[in-house]
This record gives sequence, structure tokens and C-alpha cells, in this order.
Amino acid sequence: MSDRYLAFANSTSGRRLVSALGLPAPLLLERWMAGRSRPVDGALLIGGEGSLASAMLPFANKLTDALFAAREGQFDLPRWTAEHGPKLKALVFDASGLTRFEQLIELRDFFQPAFKGLDKCPRVVILGRAPESLKDPIAASVQRSLEGFSRSLGKEIRRGGNVQLIYVGKGGETQLEGALRFFLSPKSAYVSGQVLRLNACSEQVKDWTRPLAGKKALVTGASRGIGAAIAETLARDGAEVVLLDVPPAKDALDALAARLGGSVLALDICASDAAAQLVEALADGIDIVVHNAGITRDKTLAKMSDDFWNSVINVNLNAPQVLTQALLDAGKLHDNGRVVLIASISGIAGNMGQTNYAVSKAGVIGLAQAWAPALAKRGISINAVAPGFIETQMTAAIPLTIREAGRRMNSMGQGGLPQDVAEAVAWFAQPGSGAATAQVLRVCGQSLLGA
Amino acid sequence: MSDRYLAFANSTSGRRLVSALGLPAPLLLERWMAGRSRPVDGALLIGGEGSLASAMLPFANKLTDALFAAREGQFDLPRWTAEHGPKLKALVFDASGLTRFEQLIELRDFFQPAFKGLDKCPRVVILGRAPESLKDPIAASVQRSLEGFSRSLGKEIRRGGNVQLIYVGKGGETQLEGALRFFLSPKSAYVSGQVLRLNACSEQVKDWTRPLAGKKALVTGASRGIGAAIAETLARDGAEVVLLDVPPAKDALDALAARLGGSVLALDICASDAAAQLVEALADGIDIVVHNAGITRDKTLAKMSDDFWNSVINVNLNAPQVLTQALLDAGKLHDNGRVVLIASISGIAGNMGQTNYAVSKAGVIGLAQAWAPALAKRGISINAVAPGFIETQMTAAIPLTIREAGRRMNSMGQGGLPQDVAEAVAWFAQPGSGAATAQVLRVCGQSLLGA
Repeated sequence: MSDRYLAFANSTSGRRLVSALGLPAPLLLERWMAGRSRPVDGALLIGGEGSLASAMLPFANKLTDALFAAREGQFDLPRWTAEHGPKLKALVFDASGLTRFEQLIELRDFFQPAFKGLDKCPRVVILGRAPESLKDPIAASVQRSLEGFSRSLGKEIRRGGNVQLIYVGKGGETQLEGALRFFLSPKSAYVSGQVLRLNACSEQVKDWTRPLAGKKALVTGASRGIGAAIAETLARDGAEVVLLDVPPAKDALDALAARLGGSVLALDICASDAAAQLVEALADGIDIVVHNAGITRDKTLAKMSDDFWNSVINVNLNAPQVLTQALLDAGKLHDNGRVVLIASISGIAGNMGQTNYAVSKAGVIGLAQAWAPALAKRGISINAVAPGFIETQMTAAIPLTIREAGRRMNSMGQGGLPQDVAEAVAWFAQPGSGAATAQVLRVCGQSLLGA
Repeated sequence: MSDRYLAFANSTSGRRLVSALGLPAPLLLERWMAGRSRPVDGALLIGGEGSLASAMLPFANKLTDALFAAREGQFDLPRWTAEHGPKLKALVFDASGLTRFEQLIELRDFFQPAFKGLDKCPRVVILGRAPESLKDPIAASVQRSLEGFSRSLGKEIRRGGNVQLIYVGKGGETQLEGALRFFLSPKSAYVSGQVLRLNACSEQVKDWTRPLAGKKALVTGASRGIGAAIAETLARDGAEVVLLDVPPAKDALDALAARLGGSVLALDICASDAAAQLVEALADGIDIVVHNAGITRDKTLAKMSDDFWNSVINVNLNAPQVLTQALLDAGKLHDNGRVVLIASISGIAGNMGQTNYAVSKAGVIGLAQAWAPALAKRGISINAVAPGFIETQMTAAIPLTIREAGRRMNSMGQGGLPQDVAEAVAWFAQPGSGAATAQVLRVCGQSLLGA
């Protein structure tokens, strides 16, 4: 780990010193370990009066060994209280039944006592209905107000916890299990303050231990960093991986393929024949495409050269479009395919010295949003994952003070790991995750930076 | 001014000391002064190849005395170069013609030389087409990528400058003048990094010196701070104001009314008969409604009392809804009316210790978005203005270190003034500003904080 302060603050002697000096003490986040059985390693508390909490009950006992309700007799579950219950590892509050302003205090009524009994790295999910789907302005406003609540809660929770808001649309209930297996488990360790919309999806995960079994996945920029983590995670989840990177990275690709059992494609995605080569290599077609390859060439606009501008636009924005188009034109992207683009917090908030990069990453978000309606007709989803500060060779090269600011200015007080981005990608890649499309999921520890 | 550092850094002796010590030197922002004639007090440079730049030409010479084009012979205007042109006070780049990724470099080609010749407090507007209105995924992505560019540019521009992106939809060209009179003038001093959508509007401003002439405007919470500034600004622009605040503030209301020539309504907006009283007081109806009254009652959720929660929800969220509904039901809100809600950056990004406030302010954004479609049928617009850190009695009460962080963590290195919020409200209140509805305009100096 390159974040030495985080390691120190979580060591036995370091913890004491950090506490004595009153320094911030970011918690070492729990991550998903292969072979783990239940998504929630501890107690799960369910509350709220809407129909979504009820929709959870058929599968909730597969998420945890210890299910509780917030009220006596609710859902036929034992009641949890801060005095008598175990520490809480996960909380789900169904706010979909809230339609009037005076009901909003139910949020406080649920979370105030529950926050007294939180375990380490607790996960919170608030369920609601998308405001734009509601006709009554008050009900729509109530649901919209959940954004302010969940984002504030994300800033208050501490202890390595996170908070998300999921708007469940028509038919989205049937894919709640997959979403909660991600958001209530350590797989979402570095995701917080996010708002996601879930709708209907015709596919279902068959085996939760290998949700991507039978699927073939292409990962660009797979030789190292985030790309390698994505490949590992997709392979862990059962996918057959095709690892793509530039020819100079072929040795690294081969080593990774030997470990993961996938195949290798050493190819410059900006080459004029890249699309043709890719189509040829994927003779049997592909189910999952992860456009991860990306570069930075930072300069203020005053000093931005043709080469810096064009290379970033070409690799980060043009290549994903050209390759996606080629796969579609050649009929190589299967029905119910999953396309995931890697964007960036810079594409959302903008960044000094990154006009080229921010353009490319905002453009990538634009690609997901523009392609989604047409692809939905074939059950294909297309989404963007936007990393914040992730500990990689790329961020290790940032000057110390800027690096430290980027690392600490988020609700977790630390940078994320490549695995965190990979888990989000792997969730979007699941069969049932077609319930989400045209969306942007930030993996940023709820970075303060935004738009 | 309560920002003593800003005053010091802009004083003759202070400027030298601040520079010698290498401290950040936020620039005293130019504000609009009553009686001023032209929106742009200096040279205006126009560039880009789309049809929107052309749509500007009929009125562009009313914005400034010194119009220039970026290319030889373009628009029959003199060509500006960094070597020979005057300093630039405003820049408009029409990016609506960009449809391919390789054209994006035209952004750099226009702004790189122009940035060498910027005057103090320069204003930049980039014009584009809303991505969701475009069928071609590449063209949509190109337009979407402008967000990343404009937000990065806002972080690079410095010198008190700002940068906005305006997506112009069908018929929106006819309301460009009003938008540019706001965004290219000191009226938008503390607005930056914003994205706005303009569509058709049947009304037009008749007299730019008094754009609100003949309109009657209600302002809640008008006795002080941002509310008083809004009332003053609406009155400056020709509106007849109705000043509303709680009964204990009646003396302040009377004094303001005496100065502005408006009428006074001393009324608790949360009283059970508030709506009835308001409807009775506005016998002739109303054109402009500004829901500005708001309170904070900050506590972490762990310590959030019923009273703190409910009072904030009632004043900030329920009252605007109840009053708007009552005015509509009683037929008192005129056709082509303008409703402006005051939201907050907390409602967008969430804030520690403000779950109640963030809920209310996110809910207010929800109200604007939920009401807009129905109200549009009568030509009524409804929008939210979301202030960031504004220098008021409310923010003066924040502890020093938190206050300083809020003040400096934005592209301007300073807090905004109540006038800055008021100018945004006054722009939304204009007849032609029906072109914008269901929108959120942040007045935050491009605060780093976001979602």
C-alpha cells in the first residue's frame, strides 16, 4: 500500500499516537475476499413502510445470518434496538412509501437509534422511487429530497461506512438482490453518496458465487493498475477474460492471462486497423466490454499542445466509440451485453490542468447516455464508472501535497484501490445489472469534489 | 464587507504583502452598478462555427462597444489577436457546430490565444446543443464533453473570471440576448462552472434598463440578507415588490418598502392561515414569486430533535409548496409567471450536520423539477438558485475555520455577496427567462463541493 499514513494510523502503535495527537484517523476499509459466503458479515436492519422492503424479504436471509426489523412485529422479524441488538453491519431503509413532507422525519426516526449501534464499515442503502416517475409534485419532491439526506448521511457516518440512494423503477424490484449484494457488501467499500436508478431487466444471475459464469469479457488497458484489477475481478466472478493492451505490455498481459486463464490481445486501440483486428479476434462475439484504457497528458490550456490534446481524446474517447461501433456493426456484441466505460471525477467536476482529460471523460459519460436507448432494445446496458482518487502508479506520480489533498478530501479520508473500481465494473457486468443503464457510478469515497 | 482578508489583499499595501508572502490573492470581483449601460465593459470576442454565434450578431453590438471575431473575416468583424487586440472582457464560443471528436481541438484553438489577452473578471460562455436532443451518439458525446471543458476552464481562468456552458434548444436562440446580458456582465460575478439549458419562450424583455417593468414580485424572507438583496434587485429592474417576512421583522420590512416603494406583508409563512392571508393580500395576482425564506437548525443526526427537523422542513420546503399551491388554486399566479426557489449547495452535495437542511433544499430542487411541466403549459417557469458560501449574518455565525474553508474552497477564493444571488434570481424573473425552467443554477463561485 502506498498510503503510508493510512497504514500507520491502523497499526497498533500508530493508532495510539494518532489518537493522542488528535489527528484524523481514516479506517482501513474492509474489502471483499474471495471465498466469502454472505454479502453482509453481521446484522442487517430493515426499516420503512414501502413495498420495496417487502420485496427484499424473499432473499434477505441469503444476505446475512442476522436479520432485524426496526419496529416490533415488522416483517415478522426480531426487533432491533441499540440496547439489545448486535452491532449493525448494514441498514436498508425503504423510503418509497414516503409521499408527504411531514413523513420525512421517519428518516431520522429510523437512522438516529440505528447510528448508535453501527459496526465497523457499515453499509447503508436508502430505497426510493425516481422523482421523475411521480405525478404528484409533493411526492416527487419528497423522493428527490432523499438525495440531500443520503449525501449528508454519507458525510456523517464515518467508521468507513457508506450510504447510497437507489431509486427503484417499474420491475426494478426483481433486481434488488444483485444491487444489494454489491452495495451492502465490502464490494462497494469506496462507493458512497451515490444515487442509482434500477429498472426492469430480463436476465437474472443464476449462481451468486460465479455471477459471470458463461460470459466472455473484454478489458482494455488490462496489463496493470485498474485494468488488471478489473480483469481479475471479472475472472473471479466466472467470466472468461480477453486482456487487451498495447504491444509493449504483452509480457504483463501474458503473465496475467496465465494466472486468470484468459486470452491476450496486444493491440494499440488507436491504430487504424484496431477495430478490424478486434472484430477478427472476437470471432464468437463478446458479452462484456470494459473500456478501461486511458491516459493523462496534463497541462494548463495555455500550454496544451496538439499532441497532448489529441492523444488523450483519441485513447480515452474516440477509441471506445470506434471499438463499440465496430463490435455492433459486426454483430459481435451479444444480446444482453454489458458495456462499461471508465470515466473520472474530472469529467464531472472539471480539473485544473486537465481540459483534455476532462473533455474525454465527460464525453465518455455522454457516450453511455447517448448509446443507452438504442442498445436497450437488445437488452444491452451501457454505464460509466467514475473513479475518484485511486492508489495506482498514475496517482503515485502526482506531487505530494496535491496527492495528499486528493487522498483525504473525501468521506473515507483515504484513496481507493483498483479493486474498488473493479468491483463496481463487475457489478455493472452482471446479467441482472441490465436494470441499470446510462448511469454514472462514482467510486470516490464520496469525494468533496463535484459539480 | 466581513471578508477582511479579501479587503486586505485588494488594498494597496495589502496587495504587496500578500504577493511578497506568496499567499493566495483573491480578486475583488466586479459587480453590476445601477445606471450602467452596456453589459460588457470592454471587448467581446466571438468564435466558433455554429449557427448560435450568428444568432448573436443582431444584438451583439448592444452588449459591447468592441466586438471581435477570432478568425479573419468571420462575422464581418475585426479579427482579434493577443498581439494587437485590446484586453478581452468577454468571450463567447459557439461549439454547437462540433459533431466529431477531432473537432474538439477547436476549443483549445479558440481559448488558448484568447486566454493570453484576458482583462480582469473576464466572462466566458460556451454555447452548445443539449446532448439529449441529438440522435448521433458521437455528436451527443461531443456536446456532453463540453461540460468537462467548461468546468476545467472555470478552474483555470483565475483573475475573477467565470465560465458557463449554455445548451440552446429549439427556439432558445431568441432568448440568447437575455442570457448573455446576465452571463457576460458583472451580474454573474459569483456564478461559474454552470450548465444551463435554454429553450423557447413566448415572452420578450421590452426595455433592458427595466426588464421587470409592469411586473409584481413577491419575495419571502425579504427583511434582510439575501431576501433584502433580491427585493432591491427586482425593484431596480422595475418590478413592484411585495415584501414578506415574519411579524417581528415588520420594522425592517417597512424601512425597505419605504426605500423601494413596495408593499409589506408581515406574515409567518408556516401559520395555518398563511396561504389564505397571502391570497387575500395579492388580490390582483402576482407575476414573480421568490421563495427565499429559509432557516438552518444544524445538528448531526444523532442529536437532531423533532423541533430542529420539523421547523426546517416546514419553513424551507413545506411553506413554498403550500403557498405556490394556494396561489395556483386561487388563480393568482399570472400566465408567464416566474417562480424562483432558493435551494443550497447543501441540497446538492449534502453536508455534515445538515441532514434536515439538505433534505429541505434537495426537496426544493425536486419541487422545481416536478412542477415545471405542468406550469409550462401556462408559460410559467420554475427554477432553483443554489447559493454556495454567501457573506451574510447566517454565514458570519459559522466558526472561523469552517467559515474560512467555505469561503476559499471555490474558483474565486472568496464568498459571494447577497447581490450575487439576487442577480441570478432577477435573471430567472425576466419575461424572456421562461426559456429556462426546472433548472438549478448554483451561485457558488464554482465551489469545489458537489455531487
